[in-house]
Amino acid sequence: MFADGSPRVIVAGATGFAGALAAHLLWRHPRFELVAVTGRADVGRRLEDVYPRYRVPLEIEELAIERLPEVDAAIVAYPHAAAAPTVGALRERGVRAVDLSADFRLRSLATYERTYGEHPRPDLLDEAVYGLTELHRERIAGAGIVANPGCYPTASLLALAPLARAGLLEDVVIDAKQGISGAGRVYDDTTHLSMAGENILPYKVAEHRHRPEIEEQLQALRDGAAGDSSQPAERVPVVFQAHLVPLDQGELASCYVKPTRALENAELHELLAEAYREEPFVELADAPTGTREVRETNFCRIFAAADPHAGKVILLSAIDNLWKGTSSQAVQNLNLMFGIPETEGLL
Amino acid sequence: MFADGSPRVIVAGATGFAGALAAHLLWRHPRFELVAVTGRADVGRRLEDVYPRYRVPLEIEELAIERLPEVDAAIVAYPHAAAAPTVGALRERGVRAVDLSADFRLRSLATYERTYGEHPRPDLLDEAVYGLTELHRERIAGAGIVANPGCYPTASLLALAPLARAGLLEDVVIDAKQGISGAGRVYDDTTHLSMAGENILPYKVAEHRHRPEIEEQLQALRDGAAGDSSQPAERVPVVFQAHLVPLDQGELASCYVKPTRALENAELHELLAEAYREEPFVELADAPTGTREVRETNFCRIFAAADPHAGKVILLSAIDNLWKGTSSQAVQNLNLMFGIPETEGLL
Amino acid sequence: MFADGSPRVIVAGATGFAGALAAHLLWRHPRFELVAVTGRADVGRRLEDVYPRYRVPLEIEELAIERLPEVDAAIVAYPHAAAAPTVGALRERGVRAVDLSADFRLRSLATYERTYGEHPRPDLLDEAVYGLTELHRERIAGAGIVANPGCYPTASLLALAPLARAGLLEDVVIDAKQGISGAGRVYDDTTHLSMAGENILPYKVAEHRHRPEIEEQLQALRDGAAGDSSQPAERVPVVFQAHLVPLDQGELASCYVKPTRALENAELHELLAEAYREEPFVELADAPTGTREVRETNFCRIFAAADPHAGKVILLSAIDNLWKGTSSQAVQNLNLMFGIPETEGLL
Amino acid sequence: MFADGSPRVIVAGATGFAGALAAHLLWRHPRFELVAVTGRADVGRRLEDVYPRYRVPLEIEELAIERLPEVDAAIVAYPHAAAAPTVGALRERGVRAVDLSADFRLRSLATYERTYGEHPRPDLLDEAVYGLTELHRERIAGAGIVANPGCYPTASLLALAPLARAGLLEDVVIDAKQGISGAGRVYDDTTHLSMAGENILPYKVAEHRHRPEIEEQLQALRDGAAGDSSQPAERVPVVFQAHLVPLDQGELASCYVKPTRALENAELHELLAEAYREEPFVELADAPTGTREVRETNFCRIFAAADPHAGKVILLSAIDNLWKGTSSQAVQNLNLMFGIPETEGLL
Repeated sequence: MFADGSPRVIVAGATGFAGALAAHLLWRHPRFELVAVTGRADVGRRLEDVYPRYRVPLEIEELAIERLPEVDAAIVAYPHAAAAPTVGALRERGVRAVDLSADFRLRSLATYERTYGEHPRPDLLDEAVYGLTELHRERIAGAGIVANPGCYPTASLLALAPLARAGLLEDVVIDAKQGISGAGRVYDDTTHLSMAGENILPYKVAEHRHRPEIEEQLQALRDGAAGDSSQPAERVPVVFQAHLVPLDQGELASCYVKPTRALENAELHELLAEAYREEPFVELADAPTGTREVRETNFCRIFAAADPHAGKVILLSAIDNLWKGTSSQAVQNLNLMFGIPETEGLL
Repeated sequence: MFADGSPRVIVAGATGFAGALAAHLLWRHPRFELVAVTGRADVGRRLEDVYPRYRVPLEIEELAIERLPEVDAAIVAYPHAAAAPTVGALRERGVRAVDLSADFRLRSLATYERTYGEHPRPDLLDEAVYGLTELHRERIAGAGIVANPGCYPTASLLALAPLARAGLLEDVVIDAKQGISGAGRVYDDTTHLSMAGENILPYKVAEHRHRPEIEEQLQALRDGAAGDSSQPAERVPVVFQAHLVPLDQGELASCYVKPTRALENAELHELLAEAYREEPFVELADAPTGTREVRETNFCRIFAAADPHAGKVILLSAIDNLWKGTSSQAVQNLNLMFGIPETEGLL
Repeated sequence: MFADGSPRVIVAGATGFAGALAAHLLWRHPRFELVAVTGRADVGRRLEDVYPRYRVPLEIEELAIERLPEVDAAIVAYPHAAAAPTVGALRERGVRAVDLSADFRLRSLATYERTYGEHPRPDLLDEAVYGLTELHRERIAGAGIVANPGCYPTASLLALAPLARAGLLEDVVIDAKQGISGAGRVYDDTTHLSMAGENILPYKVAEHRHRPEIEEQLQALRDGAAGDSSQPAERVPVVFQAHLVPLDQGELASCYVKPTRALENAELHELLAEAYREEPFVELADAPTGTREVRETNFCRIFAAADPHAGKVILLSAIDNLWKGTSSQAVQNLNLMFGIPETEGLL
Repeated sequence: MFADGSPRVIVAGATGFAGALAAHLLWRHPRFELVAVTGRADVGRRLEDVYPRYRVPLEIEELAIERLPEVDAAIVAYPHAAAAPTVGALRERGVRAVDLSADFRLRSLATYERTYGEHPRPDLLDEAVYGLTELHRERIAGAGIVANPGCYPTASLLALAPLARAGLLEDVVIDAKQGISGAGRVYDDTTHLSMAGENILPYKVAEHRHRPEIEEQLQALRDGAAGDSSQPAERVPVVFQAHLVPLDQGELASCYVKPTRALENAELHELLAEAYREEPFVELADAPTGTREVRETNFCRIFAAADPHAGKVILLSAIDNLWKGTSSQAVQNLNLMFGIPETEGLL
C-alpha cells in the first residue's frame, strides 16, 4: 500500500490531550508520515502554539473528509457519538481508523445504548476490533476499525486477563486512581489546581461507563472468545470506582479478586508470566510499583500478590493514562496495522 | 483536679509531625495549658524553629519523667514499643495519657505480638480504651490510657461501624489513599518530592499493620461489645491496601462491602444517619467528597452508595490523616477526658 | 452603632475565591455577624455547597441594594470597574465598605485610567483609604471606603516600606511568585493542573497592573505623606515581574534594591525591626523563609540581607495571597474600623 | 578512534539524579555504548532497580580506575572536590571526561578556592573547557576535560550572553526558580514533599556558589575571550538568588538587566536571534514561556522584553535543570567530542 513511502496518517481531533499526544508521537515516528492535524478549536493555529512541548509545527485544519488528502490511516480523537460518523466516512474512503472514543468498544449494542445512548453507526460494530493490543494482536493487524480501549479498562484488563482466561474470577473490585490529565482539556473544579491539588476525589460512584467495557471483555476472555461474543451470559460482577489524584499523567488500577479457588503466589505469578513473558510493553514487577515508573511510556507494569488472610488476590496495574491508556497504544496498534515493528517510535 | 486553672498537658515526642501538630493544637487551645514539649531530636531548639508555621515558642526538652512538672495529661507521640514504657511511667505518676502509637490499640495480646513483636507493658492493656471518639466516647471520658487509633482505621471504621453493628458485613475490601505526611518525618524515596510527586504508590501489599486493628474493632462492633472482646471468633475477612498519593495531608478510605443481604440506598443512608446525626465531627455527604473538604479539620466526611449492579455497597470516607487521623482526634479525646466540650479548640 | 450587638456584615461577590474566604472568616469570627452572602453565579445554592470546606451555610443571594437588610459593613469582592458603583451605592446607604478590587487603590485618577480604563466613580477617590493595615492603620479606622491592596503590593510594600520611608530606594526589582489560587476561580490553561503542574510560568511581562500601585505607595512613603500625595514627582522606577508556580496558596515577593547609599545588615535589620517590632502580623525571620510558614494565616514574614558583593539589598517577603494578600487583611481592616482588637478572628 | 564501533562510555556516580539520567540517555543513545555505571551506594544492584523508569539494566559497580575496561569517555557525576582526582586519573588513562561537578568550571583558581576551598587538581584547570555548548562549541569538540556548567549558569548565561558580548550589561539581577530535583537525591526538609509541597523557598541568600561562575563567564564574554581570561577585571556585579518551588524538573532564570544604554525590543530580539538562529536547542519564544515546555528536553527557551518604564530588560530563560541544565547537555557535549551530530539521542 505504501511501497513508495511511509503510511500517511492524520489525527482528527488533535486539540484535546489525547489527539495532541498522538500527533506528537506520529510526528516524531520514524515510519509514519503525519500529514494533517484537525480540530474544531484553534483552527489556523499551529499545533505547537497550542501544545508547545509537543513541537508539532502543522497548522490545525477543519476536517473536510471530501477534500481529504490521500491518507492511509487516521487516529480519531472525538467524543463518543461524535466519533462514529467520522469513522464511518473515513472507512468509506478506505482509510483505516483507530478510534479513541467509546463508540466501537462494546460488542453489545444493547450495552452501548444503555451506557451512552443511541449509536450513530451500529452497522460498523462488526467491523471493529477491540484495540487492547496484547489481547487482540492478530485481529488488530487486519482491522479497518480499531476501538482503542479506555484507559481504565487497559490497566484493569491487562491485570485481570490471565485470571479471566483461566476462569478464576469470582468477584472483582477495581479501585482506580488517575492523574488530572484523565479529565482531559476540560476546565472546571475537577481540573483547577486550587481544587484538584491537595485532594483525593472519587467520582461517578457505582456508575462509571468503563465498567460495562471491562465486564464485556472479562466475559469474552472467560468464554475463550476473546472479545467476539455478543451474547449475554452470566457475568462476573465488577465493582469499578474511579478517583482523581493530584498529578498530571499516571493511573493505577488496584484490582481485588476473589478467586474461584485458592490461589497462591507461585501459581499467580506463573499465570502472569505465561501471559506476558514475550510482551514488549508489559512488565511484571517484583515489588509494588508506582505510576511514576511508567510515566510517558507505553509500558504497563503489574505487581500481583495473593492475600491468603482474606482469601483474595491483589493486582496492581500501572500505566500512563495518556500513553498506554490512550495515545501510545493507538500508535502501537497502527504499527501492527501497517506491519511495522510494534515497538517502533515507542521506546 | 484543676479547680484553680486549666489542665496542664505535655506532648512527648513533639518533633515528629503528629506530636508537633498536637502541640500546636494544645498551644492555641483555650482550655488546656501546654507546659512542655519533649523530643530526642532538636533538644534546646524552640519548637517554632523546627515547625515555624505551628508557632509554638516552647523549647524542646528531653523527657525526664522523674523531674516532670505537675501535669495532668500527656499526648505521647512515640513509635510503637517505645511508647508503652513511657505511658506506663506516666500512669504511675497519675498522668493520663493519649498514646498515638499502636501499643494499646489491640485488645488481643496475641494479635499485637504477631503484628509488632513483644509487648513492653501487656499489664496495661486492660486499662486502655480504644480512642476512636465516636465509637467509645463514654469509656474514653474516664480512661487513664487512650489508645488513639491509626489514621486508616479511623477513616475505615467510621464508615463501616454502622454496618458492622447491624451485622451486615460479609466481606470488606478497603482501598486507602493517603498524602505523604502519612509517612511522617521520614526522609527517603517515598517522601522525596522528586519521587513521590507525579506518582501513585501502593505499599505493604497484603500485610499492612492496620488490618488487624480494623478487624478486631469490626468484630467487636458486630459482637456488640464495642471493643471489649478479646476472644477469637469468626472474623469478617478484610482486605486492606494502602497507597501514597502526591499531596501533603489527606486520606480517603474507599470501602467495598459485600453485605450479608441486599441493601439499598435508603436503608444504607438511614443506618449512617442514625449513627452520626448528632456527631459534631462526622459529616454525611450527598455527593462524592474529596479529602480537600476536610483538610486541616477534625471532620470525617462520608459518602455511601449502594451498587446494586454488583451487589455491593461503596463507602468513601475522607479525613485529614494528621488531624482526625491522629492529633486532633487526640485533642478531641483529651477534651472528653477533662470534661471540656468536645469541639473546644477544634472548630 | 452596634451597642445592641455585633456589627452586621455582608460579603458581596462571595462565589469567587476571595469573597468565599472572607465569608468563611466572618462566619467564624466571634465579633461580626455575617448576615448575607451575594453573588451572580450559584444563586440559591448554599455557599457551603460551592465551597464545602468553608462550611458557611448561608444561601447565596443576588445583591439588591435597595432591599438590603440593615448592615454596618460590606466586603466587596468584584472585578475592577464593577466594584466602584456598588461601593458607591453602599456608601449612600451608610454602609462602610472594604473593596477588594483595584478601583480605589490608586490616588491618581490619571494612573488609574492609564491602567484600568475609565473610572466609574472618581468622586469617591478622596474618601478611600489604602488598606495596607500596617501602613495606614489610623486612617483605616475611620474610613468609609477601604481599598484593600493587591496581594503583590501587600507583600512588596511591607518589605520595602521601611527603606522607602528612609529615602533609601534608588532602584527596585520585584520578582514575585504566586500559587495558582492567585489566578482566581478562572478556568483556563493557567489553572488546569495538567498545565499549571510541573510548571513555572511568568506572565504579564513588563506590564503588570500592580506596578503603578506599588510605585505610587513607595513614592508616598518617601514623600512622608503615607498615601495622600496625588502629585506626580520623581518616581523610584520599579520592575515588577509575576510568576505562577504549582501550589495553591502562597506568595513570595523577592525584592532586589539598589540603595541610595551603602547599607549593611545591622542597619537594614534595625530599620525593619523599628518598623515592625510591635506589629502582630509581621514577622522578621532570621533565616530565609518559605511561603509554607504563612499558609492560611494573616502573617507576612520577611527575611532581609545585604548583598555587599553586588551593592544591593535583598528582601524576601512571604504571605498567603488569599489571606494577608486579600481576605484576612480585609477582616483585619474591618476589625480596626469597628474598634475590635486587630487580631480578633485571625489567630 | 572507534573505527570498529561506537565510543565506549562509562558514567561514574550513576546513583545520583544527574548520573542516573546520563546513564539513561547514553543507554538509549544510538551511537554510544554505555559499558559501565559506577557508584558508591547501591553497588551490586542494577541501576534499573534503583531508578526503574530509566530502565538501564547494568549492575552498579565500584569505580576501580586501575581495572577500568577500555573506554573512550566518562561522565563524572561526583560532588565538587571529589570529582577532580577521578577526572585526573581518567585523563591519565586517556579517557576524555565530562565533569558535572564545579571543579573545572572556574578559570580563576582564586575564585574557586574562595568559593569551594582547596582545589585537588589545579594543574588540570588549563586543560578544561567550560561546557556550555552554545558558547564554546569548538573548544569542547577537542577537549579532554569538559566542565559541564551548573544548571543556573546554563539558563542564565544563554539568556545573557548576547547582551554580554555586546557590552550591554551594566547591572544584572538573576532570580532563579527550580524544581526539587535540583536539590538532588538528598533527603531532608527541602525535599520532603510535606515540607517542599505548597511552598516557595528561597535559599542561600547573597551567597550562592553559582554567582562566581556566572560572573566569570559574563566577564569573559564581554572581554571577547569566551572563557579564557583568568585576569581580574572590572566585573559586572550580579545578584543571584535561587528558590525552590514544588515541582520535580524545571528551572526558570528571570534576568533583570540594566543595560548600558537604552535598548528597545527590536534590537533586543535581533541580538538574540543573531546569536541563536542556527542553534538546534535554543528556542526564542514570542510569548512568556513556562518550564513545562522544556521538561525532559535539551531545549532552552528564552523570552525577552524591554521594560522602557523602568529602563530595564527582562529575559526569562527556561530549561529542565536535569536535562539541559545537567545530563543532556553532557551528552550534547559528548556528541560534539566524538564527531557525532549534536542532536543525536536528544530529540
